[in-house]
Amino acid sequence: MDDIYRYIDDHLSDSLAELQELCRLPTVSAQGQAIQETAEHVAGRLRSLGFESQVLGKEGAQTGGRPAGHPVVYAYQRGASARTLMFYDHYDVQPPEPLDLWSSPPFQPTLREDKLYGRGVCDNKGNIAARLAAIRAWKEARGQLPCSIKFCIEGDEEIGSPHMEEFVEEHRELLAADACIWEGGGVTWEGRPQVTLGVKGLLYVELEAKTINRDAHSSWGTTLPNAAWRLVWALSTVKGPDERVLIDGFYDAVRPATPEERAAVGAMPSEEGETLKTYGISDFLCGVRGLDFRLRHLFEPTATIDGVISGYTGPGPKTVLPARATAKMDFRLVPDQDPDDILAKLKRHLAGRGFGDIEVRTMGEERPARTPVTDPFVAVVGDAVQAVYGREPVVVPSMAGTGPLYPFVKTLGLPTADCGIGYPDARIHAPDENIRVGDFLLGTKAVAALLGRFAQSS
Amino acid sequence: MDDIYRYIDDHLSDSLAELQELCRLPTVSAQGQAIQETAEHVAGRLRSLGFESQVLGKEGAQTGGRPAGHPVVYAYQRGASARTLMFYDHYDVQPPEPLDLWSSPPFQPTLREDKLYGRGVCDNKGNIAARLAAIRAWKEARGQLPCSIKFCIEGDEEIGSPHMEEFVEEHRELLAADACIWEGGGVTWEGRPQVTLGVKGLLYVELEAKTINRDAHSSWGTTLPNAAWRLVWALSTVKGPDERVLIDGFYDAVRPATPEERAAVGAMPSEEGETLKTYGISDFLCGVRGLDFRLRHLFEPTATIDGVISGYTGPGPKTVLPARATAKMDFRLVPDQDPDDILAKLKRHLAGRGFGDIEVRTMGEERPARTPVTDPFVAVVGDAVQAVYGREPVVVPSMAGTGPLYPFVKTLGLPTADCGIGYPDARIHAPDENIRVGDFLLGTKAVAALLGRFAQSS
Repeated sequence: MDDIYRYIDDHLSDSLAELQELCRLPTVSAQGQAIQETAEHVAGRLRSLGFESQVLGKEGAQTGGRPAGHPVVYAYQRGASARTLMFYDHYDVQPPEPLDLWSSPPFQPTLREDKLYGRGVCDNKGNIAARLAAIRAWKEARGQLPCSIKFCIEGDEEIGSPHMEEFVEEHRELLAADACIWEGGGVTWEGRPQVTLGVKGLLYVELEAKTINRDAHSSWGTTLPNAAWRLVWALSTVKGPDERVLIDGFYDAVRPATPEERAAVGAMPSEEGETLKTYGISDFLCGVRGLDFRLRHLFEPTATIDGVISGYTGPGPKTVLPARATAKMDFRLVPDQDPDDILAKLKRHLAGRGFGDIEVRTMGEERPARTPVTDPFVAVVGDAVQAVYGREPVVVPSMAGTGPLYPFVKTLGLPTADCGIGYPDARIHAPDENIRVGDFLLGTKAVAALLGRFAQSS
Repeated sequence: MDDIYRYIDDHLSDSLAELQELCRLPTVSAQGQAIQETAEHVAGRLRSLGFESQVLGKEGAQTGGRPAGHPVVYAYQRGASARTLMFYDHYDVQPPEPLDLWSSPPFQPTLREDKLYGRGVCDNKGNIAARLAAIRAWKEARGQLPCSIKFCIEGDEEIGSPHMEEFVEEHRELLAADACIWEGGGVTWEGRPQVTLGVKGLLYVELEAKTINRDAHSSWGTTLPNAAWRLVWALSTVKGPDERVLIDGFYDAVRPATPEERAAVGAMPSEEGETLKTYGISDFLCGVRGLDFRLRHLFEPTATIDGVISGYTGPGPKTVLPARATAKMDFRLVPDQDPDDILAKLKRHLAGRGFGDIEVRTMGEERPARTPVTDPFVAVVGDAVQAVYGREPVVVPSMAGTGPLYPFVKTLGLPTADCGIGYPDARIHAPDENIRVGDFLLGTKAVAALLGRFAQSS
């Protein structure tokens, strides 16, 4: 692999320049900015590396009567072995706001010391660039790819990938492969490479209580129904101070961690101290620490109030009895919980507890998925990163967050793992998103190493 | 009294013009507008009617190291009998917002058909004007007042009269009198005059939960404490869906309605149908109707959430775990509940239920007070309004709302009652505040009748 690694080293500045060019496109999916332009740009880059590439589902396209979402960049290139590796990525980024907290403009990617700053330099354009750099190195050093490669690069990830399940269903054959590298990944605080295998699912709802048809003077607290009270009481039945979710059957489908998953979590480094310090607290919920902390964080579902508003919230007092109250809630789900099932249970719970008047509106659903730690593909990825980083990888059975992994695991039947350029202070979704150049280089080499190993695996 | 009533009829347009002049001053106490100017204007009008008048506590004055609040207009005029009647009023008004819902500008009082529209035309400048018109009629028709009269007209009523208790305490001798006419009053939907004898007290607090030092990604719902949950759980322990306040000892000092008060409430007309229709509901809390409804509304204390806010409350979903949550609450108190005592009990309650982390900030306190329905002054007022309106008055032992009655009843020892120009659709505190000219005329005559009867009472 020395020839390939040398090519990567020698062309680092070209690769970073290409990443910077990609990051100058302000591809904010939440605001519909630069979508088509970025998709075409990425497809063009893939073509220049010898891929057949298509931009599927141009803006404004309809699927089954509904808008198809932002276009997906699909690409394919045949390699030497019969094995096909898919890369799932996304070309869209989070909004850059708040702008005043950036040290340099978010869409003018800037190198300072050993870091590149800009929106998307890590999540996820940086990973796209590293993957393309690894592919170019193989092509230039060896003339062809060791295995076949497909790319599936969507433009809706930062708004919850509302169309990915449907897209994968409709393009099952086009997307057929043997394994999938997920979008993110990187190293721990100590510099160990981290390979993550799963995601949680999500149910996002808005609850609304409406009582009277207009706000009333608060002296009517005696006899008129108060929407804020209704909502507070309803919410308080969903989860209690012991952190146990009280919806009947909420935990029924929770798949316990396997012995191998527990062992993997047991081998993860402890980063509790950093987390406590970051949030200025001395203890976690329920006092969990060590293995219990990590198992709870990665294998337990949640019920979170994301926001709540009712009545008068300005300065000083105002005596008003609110007619309307709303809360946003998310439930992070674990295999095999199903967002539709949890939604139905939530509605039944509210009705059963006397809160049938609370309206429940769905604002997002994603299903959880995990690749088993015992899948042979996990060993292939682990072996590749160990060779490049010279450190034993940390295998993380699932992240605590959410992504559209489910259709890749379930519909396409692919084992998945990530392998990326991030590090804990990359500030994705936040001001001053950044990568360390050294991580970009190692992440590129890891992808290159993986291509070679994967080509020979079975 | 015919000479006096005739004078009032003949000078109606002058009286309305004076009211309009007063209402052109935008005396919004919450915004500190036109305060001194209005106080001087009112004092000047009183002097022109033969009162000795002072503006006490100019703006910027200090009392015991604290700002003394907006000035109080005090006035005195000796009359024929030894009896002294005090009028408590306020020259400040509520903010006029939302402006776009006014049919004419709030500070350009406008006559349309039989109504005068403008901020303060009813609450409380209209009552001041009616009282001055009655006094002028006595002076012009008879040369002197039948009894001595004092005015105590404050400028902080619409922001909760934070200084009235202290002011009365400090001016006990200046304010000595035999009885007090309260600021409001008027007629029912059926046109019966209404005489109200008491007010509820108030404790207004802001509760704040703070957990982590910044908002977190909601995937941390597993292990990081969520301020919105803390606040929801804490609030849900304060009152349950059966509407019973759960703070230990909350009801201890509640003075039950006397048989005479119950009888008075029993004789009140039912306005439940109008209230249900106004708020678009089919039932009151706890299903109360008839006497139970009125007793609950007038004699029971409340715990009301006036507002609550935490986390993300904009459009669409955002997965965030809030670091901070606040709620505003008011407790309407009845005799002999004490706001300080209820505050201490609330804090003990929260600490005792495991919510000692919730900060409680006081934003307002007023004590409840009632004049007994059996007080002879009530009969004098009832007799006067019956003579003018030709209908039996409705005696209301207490309003459901709050006002600074306590120091007048307790510190000065005065019986109190109201006698005013309002009607149920006067829209006080709301856009299109208005009075009916006929009510202004009757309310003026009722005050005139009262002065004569009060002079001869004992």
